[in-house]
Amino acid sequence: MTQIRRQTFAVTSSLQYKFLATTLIYSFMIVSFFVIAVVFPDVVEMSDESLSSEIRSSAADRMLGKNAWVWPAVILLITMLSLHSFLEFRRITGPLYRFRWVFEQVENGKLPSTVKLRKKDYLIEEMKAVNKMLISLVGKLSIIREETAEAINSFGEVDGTANKNIEWSAGQIELLKAHREHLERLSAAVQFFEVQEKQQI
Amino acid sequence: MTQIRRQTFAVTSSLQYKFLATTLIYSFMIVSFFVIAVVFPDVVEMSDESLSSEIRSSAADRMLGKNAWVWPAVILLITMLSLHSFLEFRRITGPLYRFRWVFEQVENGKLPSTVKLRKKDYLIEEMKAVNKMLISLVGKLSIIREETAEAINSFGEVDGTANKNIEWSAGQIELLKAHREHLERLSAAVQFFEVQEKQQI
Repeated sequence: MTQIRRQTFAVTSSLQYKFLATTLIYSFMIVSFFVIAVVFPDVVEMSDESLSSEIRSSAADRMLGKNAWVWPAVILLITMLSLHSFLEFRRITGPLYRFRWVFEQVENGKLPSTVKLRKKDYLIEEMKAVNKMLISLVGKLSIIREETAEAINSFGEVDGTANKNIEWSAGQIELLKAHREHLERLSAAVQFFEVQEKQQI
Repeated sequence: MTQIRRQTFAVTSSLQYKFLATTLIYSFMIVSFFVIAVVFPDVVEMSDESLSSEIRSSAADRMLGKNAWVWPAVILLITMLSLHSFLEFRRITGPLYRFRWVFEQVENGKLPSTVKLRKKDYLIEEMKAVNKMLISLVGKLSIIREETAEAINSFGEVDGTANKNIEWSAGQIELLKAHREHLERLSAAVQFFEVQEKQQI
């Protein structure tokens, strides 16, 4: 049983870098706009020489006062939102990571019986569709596997009677041989698939 | 060929509603914070009766002046970012929609040869894994299909010689019948799968 657990900040998808880049750009735009909206009017007032020195010094005071709390608060807000969105986004990339594992397993003929997600993961709809697909594949391939084995068995019995009380012509022996070869190639292809009972990452 | 094209604002996943809700909450928090940082200092100054009336009226002017441009700009910024993130998010939900379609097709035995995404879509890694899985399934199932057909053919030939020049015992006839039945059940299971050459949504 392979156990590869997801870590809180594990990067399981290149998508997470793109997401981080987008978040940084958004944050930069929002903070820039904050700077303009909060600082700009005071700076204009401070440098406007037509205003009284009282108003100009009050603008400077106000700016200093705001600087003390606005920027830490803005940075806290943006960091919290970024962190929250990153953790939320993991509820998409985590399932995708498991799905990729399922696809690789099926590609290699190892059919997982189902895929499970974490309690709070998104992509539940997709998980259901993947599981239905797996159930269908496992079901049909089990029948194919079983019937192939049965066919080989029953053919072995037919073949076993070959030289008992009847004479097979050379042509018939050829036919039987060809048939056996088809069954063997079929069996080899069928053997490729095997159901993995309880593997789960 | 089924043609269901994605529309610009089509909702293909309940994930998009969650995403929209998150975006609205984030926007609300950012705008609220804007209100506090931009308006609050002026309001305090306006209501502080210890300050001169000149400073207080200048604060009122400044607030009116800011109101004229800050709020439309904030709303524009937030709307643009929300819209952009919604469109970006479609580059994840769009591929998921196609993947779900693939899973349903495979569930119903209709193997699409490959799945294609749009040029700018994300989930390229997942698409590659899905395609490798499909190629492997199509390849192996084609062999199984072919060999099953061949086995049935060659068995038909063996069976056809049954009453020609040899006498089959009742037991042998039973064995041949059992074998034929296994091949038929196998064939029915194999027939379930068929490769869809060029279907694509």
